[in-house]
Amino acid sequence: MNGYPRSLQKLIEELSRLPTIGPKSAERMAMHLMRAVAGQQVKALADALLAARELTRRCKLCNNFSEAEECPICQDRERRDKSICIVEDPQDVIAIERTGKHRGLYYVLGGKLSPLEGTGPDDLPLAQLVNRLRQESLQEVIIATSSNREGETTALYIKQLLQPLGVKMSRIARGIPVGSNIGHIDQATISEAFVGRREVGP
Amino acid sequence: MNGYPRSLQKLIEELSRLPTIGPKSAERMAMHLMRAVAGQQVKALADALLAARELTRRCKLCNNFSEAEECPICQDRERRDKSICIVEDPQDVIAIERTGKHRGLYYVLGGKLSPLEGTGPDDLPLAQLVNRLRQESLQEVIIATSSNREGETTALYIKQLLQPLGVKMSRIARGIPVGSNIGHIDQATISEAFVGRREVGP
Repeated sequence: MNGYPRSLQKLIEELSRLPTIGPKSAERMAMHLMRAVAGQQVKALADALLAARELTRRCKLCNNFSEAEECPICQDRERRDKSICIVEDPQDVIAIERTGKHRGLYYVLGGKLSPLEGTGPDDLPLAQLVNRLRQESLQEVIIATSSNREGETTALYIKQLLQPLGVKMSRIARGIPVGSNIGHIDQATISEAFVGRREVGP
Repeated sequence: MNGYPRSLQKLIEELSRLPTIGPKSAERMAMHLMRAVAGQQVKALADALLAARELTRRCKLCNNFSEAEECPICQDRERRDKSICIVEDPQDVIAIERTGKHRGLYYVLGGKLSPLEGTGPDDLPLAQLVNRLRQESLQEVIIATSSNREGETTALYIKQLLQPLGVKMSRIARGIPVGSNIGHIDQATISEAFVGRREVGP
């Protein structure tokens, strides 16, 4: 015999197709799921997979995950007429929402410009973004793409794209992460922190 | 908004109940699965979970995973009348089979004696093991439980349990793993390697 029964082998294969899961981890997970006590869990996971696929879609206004046609943030009247924060992924929305520092809308690009991965401007929903900005009367566009080369390229592209609309645009600050020892921070970040320094109040 | 849509949140929760998967990994997996290109994968994983749960059971003779009542190894006539190798888990069978060094049967305990985890002799299928050994005419019982305290305790317990049957018993060797530098190996293993040393042929 050179392996597990076919149905179990298939489960290990499907688990190992998940990101960051190697064959060994997939095997360990499958062994766990095959234990009698995990019987309920197998069904619950299968149900959750199918339900998420069926119920979770993209908000037609901002591309964030949503079970309704428009997500709760886009539906929230209190969030309108303020600012819109442009992010790469739905995870970024969650992370920013946790801070409570942004009370406006979001727009999820679903990626960033990346010549290496073959993602060009046509692969991001930028026309839809321009349309939305034309329809809403927003005071500010906050660009919160990642702080790496591709994120910066995307931010610059969006800035140039939206310039004709005449809306105020900002980019979230780069600098020393809270709790960090300056001596452990890379040169590029320290440079940015100097460039972006702010006057200390009296 | 303080999170993902309910169906997506539920999927993240179920994924994070898998062993070695923290909330961050579960989130990353769910994001992957929600991408349009992974739509097929979601269904395939859900199907694999349900099929594995439905089709994979335990061999009634050796407790190994099997889709048939008796696993292919127990059904294989060529493997009878030789030896039986006692292991803790189905993974151990796969690992030993890969070596091709054991041409006999297996018996899967499904665990080991562990006072800390509350696993006593009554929690392992030992009566069934004794019954099987009474019915088969085996030349050797090879005990291949782990090489740690609990595995050794289990091996000793099984040795005493099976002694009255008068069958030859062996324990797989402990020693320096292949490819290892002696200087990097712990003291206990080096001790065992000395105790278990074998004469070199002419």
